[in-house]
Amino acid sequence: MSGLHPFDPITPGEIQLATKLLQAALPGVDLRYKRIDIQEPIKKDVVPYIEAERLGKPLPPKPARLLIALFHRLDTGAFCKALLNASTRAVVSLNEMPKDVQPPVDVDEMIEIEQLCLNHPAVQAEIAKMQLPSGMRVCNDPWIYGTDDQNESRRLFQCYMYIVATDHPQNNHYAHPCKFSPVFDGLTRQLVRIDYLPSTPDHSSVETQPWRPVPGIQYAHELLEEPLRNDLKPYIVQQPEGASFSVNGNEVSWQKWKFRVGFNTREGMVIHNLNYDGRSVFYRLSVSEMTVPYGDPRAPFHRKQAFDVGDVGFGITANELTLGCDCLGHIKYFDGFRADSKGTPIQLKNVICLHEQDNGLQHKHTNYRTGAATVVRNRQLVAQMICTVGNYEYIFAFIFDQAANVELEVRATGILSTVPFDNEKPGTTVPWGTNVGPGVMAPFHQHMFSFRIDPALDGNQNTIYYEDSVPMPEDENNPYKVGYTTEQTVFKTSSTAQTSVDRHRVFKIRNDNIINPITYHPIAYKLQTSPAQMMLASKNSFGLKRAVFATKPIWVTRYRDGELFAAGEFTNQSKQSHGVEEMVERKDPVENEDVVLWHTFGLTHNPRIEDFPVMPMEKVSVMLKPDGFFTKNPALDVPQSNQLFNKSTLHPEKACCAPGQVKL
Amino acid sequence: MSGLHPFDPITPGEIQLATKLLQAALPGVDLRYKRIDIQEPIKKDVVPYIEAERLGKPLPPKPARLLIALFHRLDTGAFCKALLNASTRAVVSLNEMPKDVQPPVDVDEMIEIEQLCLNHPAVQAEIAKMQLPSGMRVCNDPWIYGTDDQNESRRLFQCYMYIVATDHPQNNHYAHPCKFSPVFDGLTRQLVRIDYLPSTPDHSSVETQPWRPVPGIQYAHELLEEPLRNDLKPYIVQQPEGASFSVNGNEVSWQKWKFRVGFNTREGMVIHNLNYDGRSVFYRLSVSEMTVPYGDPRAPFHRKQAFDVGDVGFGITANELTLGCDCLGHIKYFDGFRADSKGTPIQLKNVICLHEQDNGLQHKHTNYRTGAATVVRNRQLVAQMICTVGNYEYIFAFIFDQAANVELEVRATGILSTVPFDNEKPGTTVPWGTNVGPGVMAPFHQHMFSFRIDPALDGNQNTIYYEDSVPMPEDENNPYKVGYTTEQTVFKTSSTAQTSVDRHRVFKIRNDNIINPITYHPIAYKLQTSPAQMMLASKNSFGLKRAVFATKPIWVTRYRDGELFAAGEFTNQSKQSHGVEEMVERKDPVENEDVVLWHTFGLTHNPRIEDFPVMPMEKVSVMLKPDGFFTKNPALDVPQSNQLFNKSTLHPEKACCAPGQVKL
Repeated sequence: MSGLHPFDPITPGEIQLATKLLQAALPGVDLRYKRIDIQEPIKKDVVPYIEAERLGKPLPPKPARLLIALFHRLDTGAFCKALLNASTRAVVSLNEMPKDVQPPVDVDEMIEIEQLCLNHPAVQAEIAKMQLPSGMRVCNDPWIYGTDDQNESRRLFQCYMYIVATDHPQNNHYAHPCKFSPVFDGLTRQLVRIDYLPSTPDHSSVETQPWRPVPGIQYAHELLEEPLRNDLKPYIVQQPEGASFSVNGNEVSWQKWKFRVGFNTREGMVIHNLNYDGRSVFYRLSVSEMTVPYGDPRAPFHRKQAFDVGDVGFGITANELTLGCDCLGHIKYFDGFRADSKGTPIQLKNVICLHEQDNGLQHKHTNYRTGAATVVRNRQLVAQMICTVGNYEYIFAFIFDQAANVELEVRATGILSTVPFDNEKPGTTVPWGTNVGPGVMAPFHQHMFSFRIDPALDGNQNTIYYEDSVPMPEDENNPYKVGYTTEQTVFKTSSTAQTSVDRHRVFKIRNDNIINPITYHPIAYKLQTSPAQMMLASKNSFGLKRAVFATKPIWVTRYRDGELFAAGEFTNQSKQSHGVEEMVERKDPVENEDVVLWHTFGLTHNPRIEDFPVMPMEKVSVMLKPDGFFTKNPALDVPQSNQLFNKSTLHPEKACCAPGQVKL
Repeated sequence: MSGLHPFDPITPGEIQLATKLLQAALPGVDLRYKRIDIQEPIKKDVVPYIEAERLGKPLPPKPARLLIALFHRLDTGAFCKALLNASTRAVVSLNEMPKDVQPPVDVDEMIEIEQLCLNHPAVQAEIAKMQLPSGMRVCNDPWIYGTDDQNESRRLFQCYMYIVATDHPQNNHYAHPCKFSPVFDGLTRQLVRIDYLPSTPDHSSVETQPWRPVPGIQYAHELLEEPLRNDLKPYIVQQPEGASFSVNGNEVSWQKWKFRVGFNTREGMVIHNLNYDGRSVFYRLSVSEMTVPYGDPRAPFHRKQAFDVGDVGFGITANELTLGCDCLGHIKYFDGFRADSKGTPIQLKNVICLHEQDNGLQHKHTNYRTGAATVVRNRQLVAQMICTVGNYEYIFAFIFDQAANVELEVRATGILSTVPFDNEKPGTTVPWGTNVGPGVMAPFHQHMFSFRIDPALDGNQNTIYYEDSVPMPEDENNPYKVGYTTEQTVFKTSSTAQTSVDRHRVFKIRNDNIINPITYHPIAYKLQTSPAQMMLASKNSFGLKRAVFATKPIWVTRYRDGELFAAGEFTNQSKQSHGVEEMVERKDPVENEDVVLWHTFGLTHNPRIEDFPVMPMEKVSVMLKPDGFFTKNPALDVPQSNQLFNKSTLHPEKACCAPGQVKL
C-alpha cells in the first residue's frame, strides 16, 4: 500500500482492510455496506508532498491514507459512518448518524428493490389488471424518493413501472409507462403504498385499467421499421506513432500538462494536482453535485428529484467503456473499484478513457503581404467518463489543450423519463411537458450541475473576483463616446454572485502575490461560465430547499477539508441541503486565501419530440483559460500543421491541388 | 451560361459580360470596379424552380440571372451602382450614388494605399525621425476610416504604421506599432494629414521621436527563442472509402441533407436551399454583417471600426486553403471568382472547404438490466471559410449533423490590433487595454456578428416566437411548488427582442400550417442563441449609430428582395446604418409570412496577454435544432458505432481489452 500515491483511487486491498477493521470494531454485528472509498487526504498534509514532486525535491513522508465507510448495522438498522486510517490500520471515528439521514443507494439495493417490486403480490395484482397482450411483461425503474414530508424518516423508494413490449435487450420500455407506482421501504422491504399516476392534464388519477395498446417507439436498430443509413463511410483515426501522452499509474503527462486522474464512487472522475509546464494551476477539479428536478406539478411526480452524485454516484454508474464505441483513436483506459453491499471489492473496468482528439484550428495568421501563413491545429487531450443513471446518460469530459485551457464538457443523452398520458384525442397537451408518442409524455425538467474548482495558481493563496465590461462616462476622457473599461469586484469574504451577459461578466482567479511582468496585473486564470437559468422550483418547495446550490451560479468559499459537495454530504431524502450555502454563511475571509470557486450551470430541458426515444446529446461547456498567467500565447511552440504530418486526402472529383497562396 | 443554377456563384464569363455591358452603356468613360458579383435572384422567381427540384418535378424556366456592379467613374469620380441582367444581357439600372456614400474597398486599392503611404515624402520624413537601427523598416496596415464627422464626404484611409524588425515573411510587426498615422484620400491620392498617436494613459501625443528599441514578440517558429515541442505524435484521419458526401457542381448531398454552397465577395460562403430528407428547412443562411468597434477612447483610435462584411468582404478576404493545413481528412474545395479593379476576373482557389469530422458521441443509452448499449457517434459535415482581415482571422463553419442540427461556428484568431504604449515604468497600464509586450498595448474591442436566417420550414410561410420557462403560480394547481411551464410570445409585426438567460428564452421558427401529429404543436426549429453583451459604445456615438444591428440580439423582419445586410448596403464611412433597424421600423406583419430572423451575437474581447502574438482561437457557436419538426430522433437510423468500423487502438501499456459490460 505504501506504493500508492495520496491521490490514487481506492484499491481492493484497502476495501478488504476496511471491512476487516470494521468487523473488529463491531464484533458480531452484521453490516451492509453502502460505500467504502478513499477519503480525500488532508490538504495541509498532501501539499508539501506534491510540491516536492513538482519541484523534483526529495519527497517528505506521505500523508495518511484515509478511508471512509458508510454502512447500515443490520442489528439496529442504524446508519453509520466510519473514518479509517489505512496507513496505521486504525478506526479514526465511527459514528451513528441521525435517524433521518439516509445514505446513498447501493447497487445491490437497487437491484433488490427492483425485484422486490416485481415479485410483490400487490404489484402483480396491478399488473394483472392491465390485461397485457401475451408476450408483454412489466419492468420498473426504482427511483430515489424526493422528500415531501418533514417528518419522514423511513428509507423509501418509488418504483416507476413500464410495459416491456418485446424481449429485445434494447427494448424501450419508456414508451409504455404504466399508471401506478409502488413505494417500498428499503430497510423493512415492505410495500408502503401504491400511488396511481395522473394521466390527464389535471391532477386526478384512477385505479389501474386494462391497457389500451399503442405502438412502441424503439431505438434498437433491429426494431426500427426504416432501414439503416448505408451511406456513412468509415472515418478512422490513426496514430501510427502512438499517443502523445504518457501514463505512469494514474499520473498523466501530455503537452506540458501533468495531472493525476482520480476516481471515486461518488464523483467518478476527478482531476488532481494539475500543473502546466512545471507550474501549479489547479489543486482539484470535479463535478461536485447534480440534481434533476422535474417541473410536472402533479403528485407523485414532484418526488422525482435525483441527486445523481450524492444519492447514487457517478463512480458507481460509470459505464465500462469499449474500444471502438465510446472514443476514437488511440485509447488508454483507467479502472476503478467499489465495494458491494457485503464489502467485497468489485472491479469497474475501463470507467475512464483517455485519448487525443483534433479540434480544428487553434490559431492561424496569414501575413497578407507575403502570403506566409502560420497554422497550428488544436490537438486536445480528453479524459472522459459516461454515466448511466437509470434512463439518462451523462458524458463528462475534461478537455486539455496546448494553449493551457481546460474545458469541462457535459453531454446529456439517453432516454427521457416519461409519464403516462392519455393523448389520443388530438390537441391533448400539458403546458409542462411534450407528447413524445401515443400515451406517453415527457415532462419538463432541469439538469443542474455544480463544478467545483479548487485553484492553486502558483500556490494555494488565491483571490477570486469578477470583471464587468462597462461603458466609460461620456465626459472629456471619452470625447467620442466609444470608450469602455472594466470594473473589478473582489470577493473579500465567502459569498455568491450572479452571472451577467449584459455586462460580459467574467470570473477570474488570481494570485495577488505574483505580478505578470508585462501586464503588471497579478497572474490569473478566468472561468468562462455557462450562464444558465437557475432552478425554477419555488423557494418554498422541498425541491429547492434540498438544492440551494442550484439557486445561484457562483459560490466562493474558503477551503476546508471534507467540504467537497455542493448539496452536502448526504442528499438522499434530505429535507434541506447542508452544502455550499452553509459554507458561504461563515463569511470566511477569501482574499489571498485558500479559496474554492463553485459554478452552478445547467440545462432547462423542455423535451423536444426529437429527444425521444433516445436523445441526441445536448452539450454544455465551461472553460478555464489563462488570463495573464503567461507572458504570451503558450501554444506558440506547437509545430505547424502540414500535409506531411496530417496526410489529408483530396476529394477525387477535382484533380488540381497546388498549394494555395493566400491573398487579401 | 444556361447551365448555371440560380444560386451558383458568379463566373468569369459573367464578370466579362458585366464589363462589356457597362463599357457599352458608358462609352469612353474609364471605370474602376469595386465589385462585380452575382445579385441574389428574386425569391418569387426562384422558389418555383427549387421547389420543382425538391419534388423531382419538371423544372420551370430559370429566373433571370442578375449581376451587380459597383464602380467609380474615373471622369467624374462618381460612385455608381449598376444592376445587370445576364440572361438578357441588359443593363437593368445604372445609378449614381449620393456623394457621401462610399463603396467598399477593393483589393487593388488597399495595396495602392499601402504603397502610396510608404512612398510619400512626408511619411518617409516621419520614418526618418524614428532613427531606426539598420535592417529595420516600416510597413503599414491601411484601415477603413470610421467616420466621426457628419460632413465628411472624402474617401479616406487611415494607415497604421509598424516597424518591421526582421525581413522574415512572418515577422510580427504588430509588436512594434509606430506613433503616427497618416490619413489619405483614396480618390485624389493626397495625404490629408498625419495623426500623432497617444502612447500614454492620457490623450496627448507628441511628434515623432527616435525609436526606443524593445525586443520583438514573434510567432514564426524560426524566430522563437524556445525550441518547438517534439512530443506531438501524428494524428491522421483516414477515409479509405472516401467521403460520405457527394457534390454536383455547388450542390452537396450528405446524410439526408441537401444544400447549395454559395459564394459571393461580400458574405463569402452562403448556404442556399437547405433540405433534410426531402423537406425544405432553410432558404438561406449567411453571416450578414460584422463590426469591430474599439473601446480605446483616445483619438484617432475611435475611428477604428471596421465592418468586415460591408466595408471589405469575407469573400475577397477568404484564404485560399491548403491540403493538410486547414482541415483534416478527406477534403473537397470550392473556388470563387472576383473582379479586380479593372474588371478582370480573378480566381479565388479553394476558398471554401468541405469535409467530415467526428464530434464524439451523438447519443448513447445502456439498458442497465441487459447491459445492451446503443452508441451512435456524431459524424458532422463542415463547410468552412477562413478570412484574413488585416490583422485578424475569422474561421466560419456551417456544421451539419445527422440529427438535423445546423451549427454556425465562428472562431476568432489572428493578431490583435495593437497601439504604441510607453509602459516601461512598472505599473503603467490603461483601463481600456492590456499590455501585451514592451511598448505595445492591445485595446479592448468587440466583435459583433449578424447571423441572417431565412427559414423555409416546409414552405416560406413561417412564424417566429420566443418561449420562456417560468414557474407556475403557487396555487392549487401547483401544490408542491415545483411546477413550471412555458410562455410563448409571437412576433406579430417586424420587431426586436432581447435574449434572457434567467428565463431560458428560446427563439423558435414554426410553420403554423403544419401540425406535428404527436406533439399537436406546429412543426418547428429552434435557434440556440449565443447570448452576448451588445455594443458598448454610446447611443450618441457614430460607432453605434453606424451599427444599430449590434444593439439588440434578435431582429425579426418580413422578407424583401435585396434586404440581406444587417447594417445596410453601404457601410464604408457610413454616418448611420440603414439596415435591419429600418426594416423593423416598417412594422410589417410577420406571423405566418415569409419572415427573416437575424441574430446578433459577439465577443467582448478584452485581450489577454495570451492572445499575443497570435491568438488561440476564441469560439462562438449558435445552433438551429429541430423542435417538433420530426416525430422522433432523426438520427435513429445511423449505424451503431463499433470497432470494426472505427478501428481504434489500445494504449499499449495495458494488454486486456475485453468488451466491458455496463453496470449500474
